[in-house]
Amino acid sequence: MTQEKSTDYRHVLPIQIRFNDVDKFGHVNNTIYFQFYDTAKTDYFATVCPDVDWERVAIVVVKIEAEFLSQIKAGEHISARTRVVKIGNKSFQLEQDIINTDTREVKCRCLSVMVLYDLVRHQSMPFPTAWRQAICQYDSLTE
Amino acid sequence: MTQEKSTDYRHVLPIQIRFNDVDKFGHVNNTIYFQFYDTAKTDYFATVCPDVDWERVAIVVVKIEAEFLSQIKAGEHISARTRVVKIGNKSFQLEQDIINTDTREVKCRCLSVMVLYDLVRHQSMPFPTAWRQAICQYDSLTE
Amino acid sequence: MTQEKSTDYRHVLPIQIRFNDVDKFGHVNNTIYFQFYDTAKTDYFATVCPDVDWERVAIVVVKIEAEFLSQIKAGEHISARTRVVKIGNKSFQLEQDIINTDTREVKCRCLSVMVLYDLVRHQSMPFPTAWRQAICQYDSLTE
Amino acid sequence: MTQEKSTDYRHVLPIQIRFNDVDKFGHVNNTIYFQFYDTAKTDYFATVCPDVDWERVAIVVVKIEAEFLSQIKAGEHISARTRVVKIGNKSFQLEQDIINTDTREVKCRCLSVMVLYDLVRHQSMPFPTAWRQAICQYDSLTE
Repeated sequence: MTQEKSTDYRHVLPIQIRFNDVDKFGHVNNTIYFQFYDTAKTDYFATVCPDVDWERVAIVVVKIEAEFLSQIKAGEHISARTRVVKIGNKSFQLEQDIINTDTREVKCRCLSVMVLYDLVRHQSMPFPTAWRQAICQYDSLTE
Repeated sequence: MTQEKSTDYRHVLPIQIRFNDVDKFGHVNNTIYFQFYDTAKTDYFATVCPDVDWERVAIVVVKIEAEFLSQIKAGEHISARTRVVKIGNKSFQLEQDIINTDTREVKCRCLSVMVLYDLVRHQSMPFPTAWRQAICQYDSLTE
Repeated sequence: MTQEKSTDYRHVLPIQIRFNDVDKFGHVNNTIYFQFYDTAKTDYFATVCPDVDWERVAIVVVKIEAEFLSQIKAGEHISARTRVVKIGNKSFQLEQDIINTDTREVKCRCLSVMVLYDLVRHQSMPFPTAWRQAICQYDSLTE
Repeated sequence: MTQEKSTDYRHVLPIQIRFNDVDKFGHVNNTIYFQFYDTAKTDYFATVCPDVDWERVAIVVVKIEAEFLSQIKAGEHISARTRVVKIGNKSFQLEQDIINTDTREVKCRCLSVMVLYDLVRHQSMPFPTAWRQAICQYDSLTE
């Protein structure tokens, strides 16, 4: 059993498993994990950068790497943990995992690269200084 | 605004909205409500009839009627409420709604007819007396 | 086995079943049927009313009644059939079903009431005459 | 625009986009791509290894890497292409992409590592020789 190695995730979101998340093999289907990550990511930004106007700005996924370590059964209590590990000029990296909230077993790890996209000008956009500062402070990143 | 008329739902499950529940019109897609109802229904039976062996018994939906009263936006806090309103020999009726947990506004009402299905014998099955009693007691139904 | 009673559906859309449509009971989950109906409805309007600007107009579901007649297994070939059966001033009724394309067995029937919603003015809107005519002609309805 | 570099995908599956695949940004949500890949993978094995008893054997995803190159809009015609690029003792690698069927633009590339899982013995299992041969022949792999 792979247990969490560190405790330095500040953002932890309990995830509600739905009946139809479970496929015919009796475990949460692999495609559903990405819905968990997306939901946690949305909550992360709502928490850390509450002033973002999501009518104007979108976060677009460029790359995702996920490692599935252990299956999730219907009755388990799980959480998604999220942290920004790198902020570049236009892109940033997010590290996430899904853990069993009771046993701390890590179910899946995910690394994703994202860019900010300006929905009005229809082009990628640089990271606003205020958000960068808020994230660096929240996740104890060096700017 | 349609507010709840009664307080006689005992089973209330807060529902976590996912990022991709929201469609291009900016509200929770109508097909997603049925995932909410399914999830609440599963929790209802896990609560009221904890001894059911779901490897042997399935609950199969025969009929659904849903009335969509008000749209749900991404940031809202919502709950699904569930109660059994009638138990027949082989079928039973479930009343459910989705409410805004903060304002108590009713977003959607749903009535569904379900049957128990024996997964081993591959046929519908009568309602076991113990479950019937547990449900009637939980929801103050007259047997 | 309930087979189709009439052949007066003009709009028929073959539906592609996805791996994760199937739940732990080994059949297509009931919530997924509504994704099929939504997809067929979208195709219906793209076919019959190709000039609608969906950036300005939304079709909003007000009521859905679905009757589940027979389960759908993973390997089956299925189609969704769609027709408008009534057009009122601001609302209209859609009749849909899911059939096994090979055996013509009816899997599920659905009746839904919908309204047109003006996304710019944020209010329901009357049925434009051109669409009404196009639909009545397509589905041989008397205006 | 990234167009396909080679034509050596033999397995190509047209994918049906559903209304609720599209999120509030007006493009297919990133989590949905994995449903496309899963569906294509299932069809690949049904085609190349038609004798597999999926009541006994599961294909479990161990690792996924996906690169999102271009967004997919609601009306596009897309296909998922699938090939096995490596078969080890217990694991194998799958290369997949999503293309616009009309323009051949590559929308997303995906590399995944999978293992076969014996559902009866509840453990991973070696690749049966017959399947290995069938796959190697289908995708012109050297055994």
